Amino acid sequence: MITGKNLIGYTESANGSKQYNTFDPVKNQENTAPYTEATAQEVDQAVTMAQQAFEAYRSMAGEKRAAFLRAIADQIMALGDTLVTTYCSETGLPAGRAQGERGRTVGQLRMFADLVENDAWRNPTIDTAIPDRQPMSKPDIRQLLIPIGPVAVFGASNFPLAYSTAGGDTASALAAGCPVVVKSHPMHAGTGELVGRAIAKAAKETGMPEGVFSNLNSSGIEVGQQLVQHPGIKAVGFTGSIRGGRALYDLAASRPEPIPVFAEMGSINPVIITENALAARGSEIATTYAGSITLGTGQFCTNPGLIIATEGPDLDGFIQELGQKTAAIQAQSMLHPNIHTAYSRNASEVMEEQATQLVAAYQGDLHANQARATVVTVSGADFLANKSLHREVFGPFSMVVRCADQPELLKVIGSLEGQLTGTIMAEEADYSSMGSLVETLQNRVGRIIFNGVPTGVEVCDAMTHGGPYPASSDSRFTAVGNQSIKRWVRPFSYQNFPEALLPDILNP
Amino acid sequence: MITGKNLIGYTESANGSKQYNTFDPVKNQENTAPYTEATAQEVDQAVTMAQQAFEAYRSMAGEKRAAFLRAIADQIMALGDTLVTTYCSETGLPAGRAQGERGRTVGQLRMFADLVENDAWRNPTIDTAIPDRQPMSKPDIRQLLIPIGPVAVFGASNFPLAYSTAGGDTASALAAGCPVVVKSHPMHAGTGELVGRAIAKAAKETGMPEGVFSNLNSSGIEVGQQLVQHPGIKAVGFTGSIRGGRALYDLAASRPEPIPVFAEMGSINPVIITENALAARGSEIATTYAGSITLGTGQFCTNPGLIIATEGPDLDGFIQELGQKTAAIQAQSMLHPNIHTAYSRNASEVMEEQATQLVAAYQGDLHANQARATVVTVSGADFLANKSLHREVFGPFSMVVRCADQPELLKVIGSLEGQLTGTIMAEEADYSSMGSLVETLQNRVGRIIFNGVPTGVEVCDAMTHGGPYPASSDSRFTAVGNQSIKRWVRPFSYQNFPEALLPDILNP
Repeated sequence: MITGKNLIGYTESANGSKQYNTFDPVKNQENTAPYTEATAQEVDQAVTMAQQAFEAYRSMAGEKRAAFLRAIADQIMALGDTLVTTYCSETGLPAGRAQGERGRTVGQLRMFADLVENDAWRNPTIDTAIPDRQPMSKPDIRQLLIPIGPVAVFGASNFPLAYSTAGGDTASALAAGCPVVVKSHPMHAGTGELVGRAIAKAAKETGMPEGVFSNLNSSGIEVGQQLVQHPGIKAVGFTGSIRGGRALYDLAASRPEPIPVFAEMGSINPVIITENALAARGSEIATTYAGSITLGTGQFCTNPGLIIATEGPDLDGFIQELGQKTAAIQAQSMLHPNIHTAYSRNASEVMEEQATQLVAAYQGDLHANQARATVVTVSGADFLANKSLHREVFGPFSMVVRCADQPELLKVIGSLEGQLTGTIMAEEADYSSMGSLVETLQNRVGRIIFNGVPTGVEVCDAMTHGGPYPASSDSRFTAVGNQSIKRWVRPFSYQNFPEALLPDILNP
Repeated sequence: MITGKNLIGYTESANGSKQYNTFDPVKNQENTAPYTEATAQEVDQAVTMAQQAFEAYRSMAGEKRAAFLRAIADQIMALGDTLVTTYCSETGLPAGRAQGERGRTVGQLRMFADLVENDAWRNPTIDTAIPDRQPMSKPDIRQLLIPIGPVAVFGASNFPLAYSTAGGDTASALAAGCPVVVKSHPMHAGTGELVGRAIAKAAKETGMPEGVFSNLNSSGIEVGQQLVQHPGIKAVGFTGSIRGGRALYDLAASRPEPIPVFAEMGSINPVIITENALAARGSEIATTYAGSITLGTGQFCTNPGLIIATEGPDLDGFIQELGQKTAAIQAQSMLHPNIHTAYSRNASEVMEEQATQLVAAYQGDLHANQARATVVTVSGADFLANKSLHREVFGPFSMVVRCADQPELLKVIGSLEGQLTGTIMAEEADYSSMGSLVETLQNRVGRIIFNGVPTGVEVCDAMTHGGPYPASSDSRFTAVGNQSIKRWVRPFSYQNFPEALLPDILNP
């Protein structure tokens, strides 16, 4: 069923000569199907078709776009076990995770279908005329959100379904009325191809203009660069590393016509534990966090990479217990040898810093591509003095910062770069005195979790998945939930329009 | 009353040695009061104070910020005639215009006060928990818009009040909870100082943290560059030329932490006139547009610089009449000799192009700095072939594009860069067949006016003042109206927060 070809509109195309394979990290071997990298001509063709499709798609009724999104969800489910086995063979993740992520993916598609089925989401705003106002009459002005144009989507390595081909960026852009060109992630090109074909099938079936979706294979950086620089692309969605996201941001900003880039990038997701919480339930918190640190082999953007607390015997005990419990969890495979190599290197670099002390690391034998879960610790003063300790170590790794006192703890939080999340573990007795902690943390993050774990991003109206740079490239938007559609729309005003030419929603 | 000093928090400061004067274009001479350019140390001090002020100001109750905004409006009105005479001496504009713009300015401040008096504008969104949801419980998540941090505001030369020191950018940023540092426009430094002092007075009077506002003198580019690159500045508002706006955008994008820039830049505001409209009321339209082209000496960002119609005897007659009527309007002074020189040069360059023909130009004597209102014409084919004709000529200048037929007219519209506005002059008989015209134009602009003029930007909920690049640097926001506050805020989510720590609006 997998052809390794690019999907350009409804055509499968493989004009290039460069091929690559995906990799099974559990078997530690390449998968057999080769994928053909898109050529410059194929990239241009996909964008040109997206531009043409935009002419019809931008003003298509919401019900029709909703039907398209639901058909995508159905077609993804219709892929059945083929999708699950392909997903697992390209990630080393278990079938349960694939199924869960598939559920989230089709759930998102259906959520956006519900959202755009009627035009209320387009924020219709009506200011009626006041002809006799002095000194000047007031005109009739009515405003609606409209789509900005074709969007380029770069999928994430760590979520082959929910943040990739038909993930949140694609679903929200298609819902908004923007055609999508996906740069397929090379680590899960097969999953991408299957899902891409499901989208094309759904598009055909529901009568969408050809070019509303294309999927381009790419193992290097050229396809992505060409996409971001193409005058036909009007916005970019990206999930991945700071380096990758920033490179695309810079490219987009340097265009003759700069375009918005929403890049969801790195985060170490600080967790603050109060003395009272450590005293009351340090052991329970250690168990919870050993699980959160190692969940999905630590390969979540909301992984808790930094735990901050003030010095004391309760903290010492907690650190030891957290280390032991984390090190005791059965090692698992990472997504790809490259990711595994980067993890080992980054973790080692942190441990080689004089200021850090190893607390515990997984001691069992490691199969190929399995990660050694690790907990280290550092003093607040040393953390403040050494910015290289603020970097994300992508994987099952966490650092506990021991602060001398509360002022130093606030200073540590204030020193952090922008984060997707912050977490506060506290007791009721703390609430009355924690205003400045909440304020300081709020100013650095997009979401604060109280007495929970940052891993797990609920798809709902009130979710903010984003935050000050570098958590995301534009903190004014969220990448998850209904409101992520706002990334791809702009307000437009109709002034003194005759009723006959106004959209229904502005003509109540 | 004017000291020529920078206003840093509540302190007047003039440590620099570089001074400059404003210019009276009607008298054609420099005004006497010298202004002292801000030093690098003064810029840093203003931003540092803004950062400190942000700590308290960001979470201040909406009623208090509203009281501050209303006090600014009152203090501006209390400046009385001093403000009007200073304004006129720095712009050459008549007192009536100064008074009208002052009314708009205090109106905007009071509008934002009304908006933020309660927290509804912060888009409170509540997703309650579903503890027994399968397979995973749903957490309680509540979202609110929060301010992003200190904002640098660059005022416009052509609106010394409404788009400058206490104009829309400053009013919306202060309303949002963001301290503001203004880079004063050198052409109206006196007006800026008076208004800046009114803001400081209002801040003191209503108990705002010092540093919530500063006003920095600047005649060169260094102060602005330093502001945009300062790590304490988190967003930029700008109104002015494409060149200036793009330079700031590039600077902001190249920061270690890139920040959003909302630049409202150039626009030629195309006007499409149908054959039916020309036949029915060509003469009336010519009169209306002669007025719109020359309004405020053409120095509006919504000035109609391009008029597009299909060939025919009605168009020929219209062009002649438009030219005559425009040329018959008494010449007026431009804002500054530099702006006058640029106008003369840009208009000449267009007229020197082989493809363009002069229709008519003002024939009376010109005093110093007065602009020669001019109408030229060009064929659709020549306009399509020559991109240099698509540039804005800032001043009382308009070009009529004669298209061979409707397809060429649509092509001309499709060839345009992004615009603030588009206007359609049409008869009822046209409505049924003009879907593609509206769609094509909508895709290039932020607002379409039907049977009116683009000049005049209503301050209201439904206004979009912005558009695809280069009309603005981010078409997803408007620079005018309530919704312009969205430029300075980001969503933030509270997950599983105890009631005691939630803001009231999220605790209904």
